[in-house]
Amino acid sequence: MKQVSVGICGLGTVGSGTFKVLTRNAAIIAGRSGCNIQITRIASRTPRTDIDLGGVPFSTDVYDVVNDPAIDIVVEVIGGYDAAKELVLTAIKNGKHVVTANKALIAEHGTEIFAAAEKAGVIVAYEAGVAGGIPVIKAIREGLAGNRIDWIAGIMNGTGNFILTEMRAGREFAGVLEEAKALGYAEADPTFDVEGIDAAHKLTILASAGFGVPLQFNKAYTEGISKITPYDIAHAEQLGYRIKHLGIARRREEGIELRVHPTLVPQDHLIARVDGVLNAILVDGDAVGQTMYYGPGAGDEATGSAVVADIIDVARIVASGSSLRVPFLGFAPEAMENLPVLEMEDVQSAYYLRISAFDRPGVLAEIATILSDSGINIESIMQKEFEVKDGRIPVIILTHTVQERQMNGAIAELENLPDIDGKVVRIRAENFN
Amino acid sequence: MKQVSVGICGLGTVGSGTFKVLTRNAAIIAGRSGCNIQITRIASRTPRTDIDLGGVPFSTDVYDVVNDPAIDIVVEVIGGYDAAKELVLTAIKNGKHVVTANKALIAEHGTEIFAAAEKAGVIVAYEAGVAGGIPVIKAIREGLAGNRIDWIAGIMNGTGNFILTEMRAGREFAGVLEEAKALGYAEADPTFDVEGIDAAHKLTILASAGFGVPLQFNKAYTEGISKITPYDIAHAEQLGYRIKHLGIARRREEGIELRVHPTLVPQDHLIARVDGVLNAILVDGDAVGQTMYYGPGAGDEATGSAVVADIIDVARIVASGSSLRVPFLGFAPEAMENLPVLEMEDVQSAYYLRISAFDRPGVLAEIATILSDSGINIESIMQKEFEVKDGRIPVIILTHTVQERQMNGAIAELENLPDIDGKVVRIRAENFN
Ligand SMILES: NC(=O)c1ccc[n+]([C@@H]2O[C@H](COP(=O)([O-])OP(=O)(O)OC[C@H]3O[C@@H](n4cnc5c(N)ncnc54)[C@H](OP(=O)(O)O)[C@@H]3O)[C@@H](O)[C@H]2O)c1
Ligand SMILES: NC(=O)c1ccc[n+]([C@@H]2O[C@H](COP(=O)([O-])OP(=O)(O)OC[C@H]3O[C@@H](n4cnc5c(N)ncnc54)[C@H](OP(=O)(O)O)[C@@H]3O)[C@@H](O)[C@H]2O)c1
Repeated sequence: MKQVSVGICGLGTVGSGTFKVLTRNAAIIAGRSGCNIQITRIASRTPRTDIDLGGVPFSTDVYDVVNDPAIDIVVEVIGGYDAAKELVLTAIKNGKHVVTANKALIAEHGTEIFAAAEKAGVIVAYEAGVAGGIPVIKAIREGLAGNRIDWIAGIMNGTGNFILTEMRAGREFAGVLEEAKALGYAEADPTFDVEGIDAAHKLTILASAGFGVPLQFNKAYTEGISKITPYDIAHAEQLGYRIKHLGIARRREEGIELRVHPTLVPQDHLIARVDGVLNAILVDGDAVGQTMYYGPGAGDEATGSAVVADIIDVARIVASGSSLRVPFLGFAPEAMENLPVLEMEDVQSAYYLRISAFDRPGVLAEIATILSDSGINIESIMQKEFEVKDGRIPVIILTHTVQERQMNGAIAELENLPDIDGKVVRIRAENFN
Repeated sequence: MKQVSVGICGLGTVGSGTFKVLTRNAAIIAGRSGCNIQITRIASRTPRTDIDLGGVPFSTDVYDVVNDPAIDIVVEVIGGYDAAKELVLTAIKNGKHVVTANKALIAEHGTEIFAAAEKAGVIVAYEAGVAGGIPVIKAIREGLAGNRIDWIAGIMNGTGNFILTEMRAGREFAGVLEEAKALGYAEADPTFDVEGIDAAHKLTILASAGFGVPLQFNKAYTEGISKITPYDIAHAEQLGYRIKHLGIARRREEGIELRVHPTLVPQDHLIARVDGVLNAILVDGDAVGQTMYYGPGAGDEATGSAVVADIIDVARIVASGSSLRVPFLGFAPEAMENLPVLEMEDVQSAYYLRISAFDRPGVLAEIATILSDSGINIESIMQKEFEVKDGRIPVIILTHTVQERQMNGAIAELENLPDIDGKVVRIRAENFN
């Protein structure tokens, strides 16, 4: 049986999960891969005494792994940008294949990294970076390879989904966030999760692999969930919708939409039923239609599962001496299309609007006229008479799909009406059809 | 760019879908695969005038494809057993790779076919055979390859799921079946679908690929949905459950459970929400936990999507001159385990029971005593006083998990009670935990 030698850099959550899975399931993995995959070196800044490394040499310098000539595959699970980038580029230069869980690194520096790997003839695999244990990169790059992918949308951050799930019981954002921290779901600084940056990293990668366009993280639009209120959640439910923090990438002729924001989804769509810390990615292909991939998006062994799947893929190629490479971003570099990311103004969406109107006759007509003059069709409207407070009444509107530019114009006009108080609350909505 | 030549045998639903997808998405497929994949020959019993074959030579003899020395990959989508088997074995003997959508063929003759392919050094791919467009074989064989798969359960037949979905509105089985036929979802002879044979074919394959055990279709237990009543559906709902026709494969130390039957699943589990003709497969791995794969299990282009994905996988290997083979059943032949399929008596399950009791004092106590003496714990019990009819009252019980042998014994005792009328209705239940 061919020997394949793996070095792990970073022995935190994912590193230890990877170690455990590779070690515990060694026999199964050998049976599946036809290779004897051995962890021959581990490095991480701080030694851990709580894990029995079974005699595998440990060092605190990751370059002891990266520069070890005996190692075939370097696993990068230190996270972050600069140190990780240098590590990965050095590993590539040393002729090693790289498996990483670092979506931030791939989304922001993937172009440079893949070019280096292409030149060196090595593989860089990153399944674990997107939706943790769910093999969605494999589904898109290989399982749906015959399709023109039209859009990808999903719950890509478990922390945010946990918070929105708990808020359905009427709880406020801030309180649930504290609970998420206490449970270890949210970091001390939760910005990455709740503001959609982490989801945008994953979405950027999914869009590239799905559509064959360059990674363009800096063009992605992100809007967090911190302003979502139990009130809007409850009213969305009354309209038959549920609020989820979605990443949405859509391919249009003019370019691609790349956006992360709170989104109303129909309650009877399967994705509305994905609760708690779980992730789910919907992929729409022209031949297959809608498929969905669901499971844990984080966790030591769940993420380790994806790292190990990538290691097995690479090991089988190494062992067979093959030059076979699934293109890193799904398409051969020369087949990539330079489609731009569209401005948010050019995005198309339906909208949930909450307008605080003074309780005067004719207000509804004024609102309806402005929307209609802007070419915006109303799907449903709710005016809550019994909710009048201080002479103001909430008007809730669900619109059909329009260009965001039109909606921006209409909202500006609405906010100028003397009969309307303050800002219009706007949450985008998707019907997935 | 490397040329890869494909011949299609069978130009029915899947054959035409495959042709359309390969043709329409040729540029995308070339970009993804790095190969120029050409359909160079098509054969099917009856010529079709409704499809423009764009000049590809057509013949009514599939051996014109199988014996064409220029063809690299033979697509078998004629269906059935004998003719398909001969076709596939001849193609293998001729050194051709085979892509098939024929789950019946693989489940019943896969062992022989894979052995022949192994010997000839060719690939036999069958993603389209299991859950149509959903890339679940790839997920299990590759995406979750680091896991010990513990169980697989799913909605593997769209016709059955459509019928059960419609029955939730209170409709009877027979009427919905007629509608399914009219809609083209069910065949004139719907036995394969509604009796669970089609699902058992798929489950057999999933179990082998997941657990690394031989294909053992003839050992699979199948129970259809034709005896399910709107009454039981409604009462399952009252207990917080939904009835789905599931294929369930579970790996236990003593052997594997392999069974298709109506099953109560918790309403708040995602799989309970999969409605209509759609399929969904849950896979539980020791590292990843539960993941689910959802989408269309049938249809011309949806199934074609999976056929084309397999063609692309094979084409890339052909083009790279690689000897790389993902083992046909997930594990290298020598790593397969000869685990037996357990008898149904040895299966473990929870149960929904509906007992028609005479409305006399002490009946409930008698029932409870028999269950308790058989080591069966009751999770919930419903006695519907207002449903008394002809002196009989329905008692509905949901049990905890027990060995089916114990349940059979208890049911025999129950049916012997003078206070109980007729047969006990028994539907298995799963909580997925
Ligand atoms: N956690 C998840 O569930 C999950 C899921 C998907 C993807 N990911 C990704 O996986 C990567 C790792 O995440 P994680 O959760 O495992 O992080 P973590 O628990 O913080 O582990 C990172 C480990 O790397 C070590 N390290 C960091 N910088 C280093 C350096 N320059 N040299 C040597 N060691 C260094 C850390 O050492 P110290 O102990 O000294 O800090 C720590 O042990 C990240 O890119 C993350 O986005 C994580
Ligand atoms: N339909 C689906 O959505 C679906 C989904 C997953 C898997 N599958 C599997 O895919 C396979 C094909 O299914 P299908 O729905 O495409 O069937 P279909 O529509 O009946 O097509 C079969 C085609 O093959 C031709 N054929 C049959 N036997 C032949 C023979 N001995 N020589 C030459 N041509 C022959 C038939 O010709 P005639 O027109 O003369 O009968 C017909 O055109 C089956 O194994 C099925 O289980 C189907």
